Amino acid sequence: MTIDHSNPLQWRFSDRATALQSSAIREILKITQQPEIISFAGGLPSPATFPVDVMKAAFDKVLTTSGHTALQYGPTDGYMPLRQWIADSFSKDGAKIVPEQVLMVSGSQQALDLLGKVLINEGDRVLVETPSYLGALQAFSVYGPKFASVQTDDDGLIPSSIAPVAEGARLLYSLPNFQNPTGRTLSIARRHELVETCARLGLPLIEDDPYGALSYNGDPLPKMVAMNPDGVIYMGSFSKVLTPGIRLGYVVAPQPLVRRLELAKQAADLHTAQLTQMVVHEVVKDGFLDQHIPTIRDLYGKQCQAMLDALAEFFPSGVKWTRPQGGMFIWVTLPQHINAVELLDAAIKEKVAFVPGAPFYATDPLTNTLRLSFVTVPPERIRHGVSVLGRLISARM
Amino acid sequence: MTIDHSNPLQWRFSDRATALQSSAIREILKITQQPEIISFAGGLPSPATFPVDVMKAAFDKVLTTSGHTALQYGPTDGYMPLRQWIADSFSKDGAKIVPEQVLMVSGSQQALDLLGKVLINEGDRVLVETPSYLGALQAFSVYGPKFASVQTDDDGLIPSSIAPVAEGARLLYSLPNFQNPTGRTLSIARRHELVETCARLGLPLIEDDPYGALSYNGDPLPKMVAMNPDGVIYMGSFSKVLTPGIRLGYVVAPQPLVRRLELAKQAADLHTAQLTQMVVHEVVKDGFLDQHIPTIRDLYGKQCQAMLDALAEFFPSGVKWTRPQGGMFIWVTLPQHINAVELLDAAIKEKVAFVPGAPFYATDPLTNTLRLSFVTVPPERIRHGVSVLGRLISARM
Repeated sequence: MTIDHSNPLQWRFSDRATALQSSAIREILKITQQPEIISFAGGLPSPATFPVDVMKAAFDKVLTTSGHTALQYGPTDGYMPLRQWIADSFSKDGAKIVPEQVLMVSGSQQALDLLGKVLINEGDRVLVETPSYLGALQAFSVYGPKFASVQTDDDGLIPSSIAPVAEGARLLYSLPNFQNPTGRTLSIARRHELVETCARLGLPLIEDDPYGALSYNGDPLPKMVAMNPDGVIYMGSFSKVLTPGIRLGYVVAPQPLVRRLELAKQAADLHTAQLTQMVVHEVVKDGFLDQHIPTIRDLYGKQCQAMLDALAEFFPSGVKWTRPQGGMFIWVTLPQHINAVELLDAAIKEKVAFVPGAPFYATDPLTNTLRLSFVTVPPERIRHGVSVLGRLISARM
Repeated sequence: MTIDHSNPLQWRFSDRATALQSSAIREILKITQQPEIISFAGGLPSPATFPVDVMKAAFDKVLTTSGHTALQYGPTDGYMPLRQWIADSFSKDGAKIVPEQVLMVSGSQQALDLLGKVLINEGDRVLVETPSYLGALQAFSVYGPKFASVQTDDDGLIPSSIAPVAEGARLLYSLPNFQNPTGRTLSIARRHELVETCARLGLPLIEDDPYGALSYNGDPLPKMVAMNPDGVIYMGSFSKVLTPGIRLGYVVAPQPLVRRLELAKQAADLHTAQLTQMVVHEVVKDGFLDQHIPTIRDLYGKQCQAMLDALAEFFPSGVKWTRPQGGMFIWVTLPQHINAVELLDAAIKEKVAFVPGAPFYATDPLTNTLRLSFVTVPPERIRHGVSVLGRLISARM
């Protein structure tokens, strides 16, 4: 056989592949995983919160009692008892959700990919918050949308700013609770206004809610999907309340959409591991999360306070930051002339890392913003890391 | 708040979602899962082959020794020790594969979706075998290709029939070992000819190989990726040699392509469960598959022979079928006037099921073909089921 190895195949990628870019965050994470770096860059939950022994016992039980079923191919829409459990947990306050409205997915990121796949045609307008979750921008980008940014303030997305950019829009993507990257919470009045505005405009509203259970004071926040189950697509996840590495999330949506998402999922990966779903059902079915989630809230709330204290102590006036009521992130706005990427270069030399804010903007990036995560760094190292950043920022004022 | 529930949102799906169709097979499977049905319709491996206790011990060990790492987010390209193990297993016969050429995926189906995503522009020509694997046709269809069928015979794909349809083609998808749906094996001479033809035409060649380890006599079949690692994209899977429900597969490909696939995977589901990859590495690293795979071969080989014996005994002359050397499927060609869908209706009334062949054709479906799987039905039920089909076919001759 004669193959001319001096002239290897030139890979021709699709237009969408040519447009694909790696997440700036994942690239930064690669640099900052050395233990000597104080990293506020991560989006990872604290492994201290993982209930490893509970998970181990559940794997053992499921494999002992139902091993052959758990390890066989399973249905694309998911493991019915877990879909039922999720539907029941959404049906508590008057709302009525049936399991056929629940689709299990391989982590929330897959929900974003599937939603992009079934809702977005190339060139369609997609509305996102300013700034928005980077993983959503990435997932939707594959399908060639034109992003339009909806304005926000300290109370989150501003519903009255939707209509002027809504013409021809296919969907609005929102993250109402302790938003990634800003840590902001959408006020309750605005939730009602947002749901109403989208219903009036005939605009599907995505409610992405990975952090909702992590409010530091434990107060529940009303879900928009309960206000209008016909027009809201809810995305949930076990990553932040149990463990992320199992890759398990879900979508709660009207049945015609769930059916389309199921077809797209069948073509994308057939189904999510049956074993994982059975194990998570085993773990959650008798109320484990009710005792477990408060321990996560407590840890994250204390570390958030440690960072807020350090910011007040070390950051010069003229710098602003958010004061989250839950979740994992604080958003910092520097004076306009300070570039967060340049600041990061200087900070890494002093062994501190964070994520510059620009990639979180779908349009018109603000280069003087940055995201800080406090959940994986102990309080004394938070204080030291923030003091270093404060000194570097002061030097640039 | 005022939401007009009498006028619910009309879901507008993307063009690609509108084109999505459920797999005919998965729909048939839903009907045929009642235990009283003798189902030759499934594509599922036999759960009798699942090493449940070995898997359970590995889950326990990984969660005990590395629980926090296994349950945390992981790298998009996969768990390095498993990628290394796969690269080593491909580097045995002179070929040299490095772990950077290996991408872990959430089952082979995800590899098909990612390959479609990064290689196919709408309207691009994609070459497939006649017939081809339905899941691949589904996955690629999402990206709007124009399929062209490459001719086949009892020795598999006919390489000389590629050039006439190759103009502008983006890739050729092949399943050389015990093909799904036909059970055919591509001859060794043709493997060389196929690799050479694709290299000459600058055409990326996909070698999908879920069944390669399952040759009944244990003879290894040469991999095309070893003949030209620069031009062949190999897809492997743990579904048929370990268990399918864990959803773990991999791609071996040139590094520029692996890098693009990794970016696409990052947007699609971030990464495949770290725990699963660590468990599979724990199971395979000391050679478990070398003793386990022969037990699967033995079981499937015996059941294949039972079905071949029954076909010879009960099917009338004028019906043809393949004689697989491995894998899970036999392909039957009826006289041209007999429609397999009509036959299925009659068979289900007598509690026997199979999959009609037409959906496996990308173009020009043959309605007188059908696929039989023998791996989950015991020999005495195989004999009875085939006798029922033989009687129904004879009545239509």
